[in-house]
Amino acid sequence: MSIIRMNLGPQSYDIIIQRGVLEQARKKLNLDRKVIIVTDSGVPEKYINTVKEQVKQAVVKVFPSGEKSKTLETFQEILSLMLQEGFSRHDCVVAVGGGVPGDIAGFAAACYMRGIDFYNIPTTLLAQVDSSIGGKTAVNLNHVKNIVGAFYQPRAVLIDPDVLSTLPTIQVASGLAEAFKMACTSDQDFFNLFITGDPYEQIDTIIEKSLLFKRSVVQQDEKESGLRKVLNFGHTIGHGIEATLQDATLQHGQCVALGMLPMCSPQVRDKLKIGLKKMGIPTKFHFDTDAVCQAISHDKKSEFGSISTVFVPEVGKFEFRSLRIDQIRALLPIIQA
Amino acid sequence: MSIIRMNLGPQSYDIIIQRGVLEQARKKLNLDRKVIIVTDSGVPEKYINTVKEQVKQAVVKVFPSGEKSKTLETFQEILSLMLQEGFSRHDCVVAVGGGVPGDIAGFAAACYMRGIDFYNIPTTLLAQVDSSIGGKTAVNLNHVKNIVGAFYQPRAVLIDPDVLSTLPTIQVASGLAEAFKMACTSDQDFFNLFITGDPYEQIDTIIEKSLLFKRSVVQQDEKESGLRKVLNFGHTIGHGIEATLQDATLQHGQCVALGMLPMCSPQVRDKLKIGLKKMGIPTKFHFDTDAVCQAISHDKKSEFGSISTVFVPEVGKFEFRSLRIDQIRALLPIIQA
Repeated sequence: MSIIRMNLGPQSYDIIIQRGVLEQARKKLNLDRKVIIVTDSGVPEKYINTVKEQVKQAVVKVFPSGEKSKTLETFQEILSLMLQEGFSRHDCVVAVGGGVPGDIAGFAAACYMRGIDFYNIPTTLLAQVDSSIGGKTAVNLNHVKNIVGAFYQPRAVLIDPDVLSTLPTIQVASGLAEAFKMACTSDQDFFNLFITGDPYEQIDTIIEKSLLFKRSVVQQDEKESGLRKVLNFGHTIGHGIEATLQDATLQHGQCVALGMLPMCSPQVRDKLKIGLKKMGIPTKFHFDTDAVCQAISHDKKSEFGSISTVFVPEVGKFEFRSLRIDQIRALLPIIQA
Repeated sequence: MSIIRMNLGPQSYDIIIQRGVLEQARKKLNLDRKVIIVTDSGVPEKYINTVKEQVKQAVVKVFPSGEKSKTLETFQEILSLMLQEGFSRHDCVVAVGGGVPGDIAGFAAACYMRGIDFYNIPTTLLAQVDSSIGGKTAVNLNHVKNIVGAFYQPRAVLIDPDVLSTLPTIQVASGLAEAFKMACTSDQDFFNLFITGDPYEQIDTIIEKSLLFKRSVVQQDEKESGLRKVLNFGHTIGHGIEATLQDATLQHGQCVALGMLPMCSPQVRDKLKIGLKKMGIPTKFHFDTDAVCQAISHDKKSEFGSISTVFVPEVGKFEFRSLRIDQIRALLPIIQA
């Protein structure tokens, strides 16, 4: 078992990484009250039931899996259900699933009676390494991602790597790619886990190292006013590609992986490609350049015509670069298939 | 001019009380950016225009006045308009109006991109003495008041008592009643303003003293975990009556005034009646006891079958009392007409 303590003053909390911890949720969390379990149709029912059996008074909200559910309508449905079930400010919200349930459930917990307890139990690798930490909650509006939300910290996060056994490989790879992104701006040792070993056999270590890196960033910049932008490495172009996808060929992590390649030195790019190939992640992809550029321009990180990006000159280092859209467009051939 | 500084660490801000300050908004606030002015149909157009003329790039959102607009739908309309107009995290929201625009606009500012600047320009006495301070923002859901919201502090509050000249007397009385509530749990001098003088001639002093009192409470208990409940004096029964009103016979303050009378000693009650008569506020009212009790039971302050209330044994003192609904019901004849 490994416990990562998030030191955020009165909002401090623990992230517990432990195989089998799902079955011990009751020992780690206060579930002796009304609990709404927020999850989606992609989460295996057995995980929901394992949590539900440990709760005093459980209500379950399942919405259709995918980004299309991440709306104010789903948010309102959750709040209405809580109201209908007579939730008080002493009750709580538990997310079980990937980033989408986590983000919506966290936002609902942040707003119900202006904030009640929230626990996060991420069941995808991507959510475990990324969205379970940092206190960012949100929904989309009019197809703009995460435009409405709150900074709201969970009371605790439970990470059970055993649940990854049922996760499709493409989703495991997506999580690994997001961890790889952090390794790239973190340090050589962390990065080498992906280059020299088999990342699929190092999952527990990768989760822990990713969270330790993200913690150091978030603790220094809780509200994303500066340093935290380093976590956006690969995300400007990655989100642009993701926004134009017509099907599930690529997941979020795969898009970020593509987005990293133009935003680093040729030396770093070569190393990134070695790691991505090990994970089975494409290093080129066919996309519509105009559509991707348009999506990037609409991204919320675009301000005053210039776009804030992260560039990695060597492993473990990074720079913030403000680029115009035409400058970004000029980089896209690097990953165009 | 009087400036009340709210000391809340990084969320600190000033409340500026000054006759004519509406025309100087540009000097007091940073309006040199995109600004959405959120207001309702009850606010005189001249006030909106006075603010609008001082803004670099103004967008105005007017919704129908009244509690019925205080919904997630209006919240979403505001956010969609901001998105459509390309608001960035450097832009801001300004509320101009009573408590409803203030609460919705504040909540929209809290959630847009997880929080952008918010200024509040309250134009009713009730909002000036009460809802402009404390950082509570919210909307209603399924007819439950303020059940969805955030604690979010404005960057500044501008209070111009001149705007009260166009406010209907019943609304001025409503604001005075809310101030009277604070005076009652505050100190004898403040209370005497209502008993010995003419409160309608002491508006500026009453605004300032109310805010100073509310500040002392809010600074000690920003998230309403304890002391802040003193501000709910008169509100348990007051909200119950308000929820059952079929028309606008009574405003919020008048309901709170009625709600105070059963929740104090006979000595305090006699003094309260003197003050209320001066303000032209009824001390008895005909209501449906069952309906009021049902509304009180549904109130979000009702937990575990007992209801947290505030009792005033003598002016300047208060106690928290946990009452069952049947105990509250037994007190209602005091104000039943």
